[in-house]
Amino acid sequence: MSRVRVHNLAVSLDGYAAGAGQSKESPFGHAGTRLMEWFFGTHAWRSMHGAEGGSTGADDAMASQWGPGIGAEIMGRNKFGPQRGKWEDHEWQGWWGEDPPFHTPVFVLTHHTRPSIQMAGGTTFHFIDATPQEALRQAREAAEGQDVRIGGGPNVVRQFLSADLIDHLHVVIVPILLGRGERLWVDQEALEQRFEVESFSSPSGVTHMVFSR
Amino acid sequence: MSRVRVHNLAVSLDGYAAGAGQSKESPFGHAGTRLMEWFFGTHAWRSMHGAEGGSTGADDAMASQWGPGIGAEIMGRNKFGPQRGKWEDHEWQGWWGEDPPFHTPVFVLTHHTRPSIQMAGGTTFHFIDATPQEALRQAREAAEGQDVRIGGGPNVVRQFLSADLIDHLHVVIVPILLGRGERLWVDQEALEQRFEVESFSSPSGVTHMVFSR
Repeated sequence: MSRVRVHNLAVSLDGYAAGAGQSKESPFGHAGTRLMEWFFGTHAWRSMHGAEGGSTGADDAMASQWGPGIGAEIMGRNKFGPQRGKWEDHEWQGWWGEDPPFHTPVFVLTHHTRPSIQMAGGTTFHFIDATPQEALRQAREAAEGQDVRIGGGPNVVRQFLSADLIDHLHVVIVPILLGRGERLWVDQEALEQRFEVESFSSPSGVTHMVFSR
Repeated sequence: MSRVRVHNLAVSLDGYAAGAGQSKESPFGHAGTRLMEWFFGTHAWRSMHGAEGGSTGADDAMASQWGPGIGAEIMGRNKFGPQRGKWEDHEWQGWWGEDPPFHTPVFVLTHHTRPSIQMAGGTTFHFIDATPQEALRQAREAAEGQDVRIGGGPNVVRQFLSADLIDHLHVVIVPILLGRGERLWVDQEALEQRFEVESFSSPSGVTHMVFSR
């Protein structure tokens, strides 16, 4: 069976995986880029976005596990864009430009479905109103035997954790206190009992934790 | 100036530094000993309690910083014992037996003051109804130039952090999800900006973080 994986999900020490006040101008809300500095510096991130250089140590090794073996992604609507409620800006095609870094089918969970959008480079956004179980069924079919990545945001990861659908969870503990935003660890008591857990701190100051089974 | 230090404060991944439901029979509430397993295995903890053996690696090195240079402790009433409201059991002298491991004056914060209790081995419990600033003034005086330890629980540490009175904070991130209990990181937005932060994971699976200045 293909596995369901989460990668590079950064969480503040007080448990927030997204800042408050996301908008088109401020995709990470009041957190700014603070949760992602460790990631933006890596070769893996830079090469995803057509740039060269970047670090090639521990953070990069973890970051680069994001792509290989993945055949589809499921993401929340808030990761796709800043609009809420009915789609008013139909021109919006995500934050990532004409050639998004996914290169697979991407299932965007939303109560407001709309036609799929085919982008360059193999990424197609499908908009579905579905339970985690049904979304995973569709994503697995599209992934043709490869793994499915749950791309976030925190709400979506939490729903999949609560439904016990995740096999590999890579979180990155960033030693900052955001104070507000979207919490990852709500109603996850005893989660660790369903996984093997491994932790290591990288020289950049973040701590990688991998829950796997 | 003497420094104000916190040591060995274990926190679950979802931010709880104490379980729910503390009682005389269950001093750690529903958390049981899960937050403290890394600590109980160390030589430092065992020698504090008159036992031999224990690990002598990274966890022990961190645990053993608890004592040296400390001249007084401030603790919350819930660390001293399970009673709430007015003192009904006047026989209660803490969880630690006749010779508690503190060996210094200990200031117990409570709205219900009572006479001091002098124990064996240099520990005296003083019960004071005071702000963090006033408690620290008294503890500093008693410490005679040595450092003051804020011994917990989480509520007390949080109050001292919010009052910006702490110079050294050692927290231990334990990769478990408690789901409920007492949170440490409430209203601590941007705390890290007042400190240098260092993180390292120990082979036992916990991650030590030191905030210092």
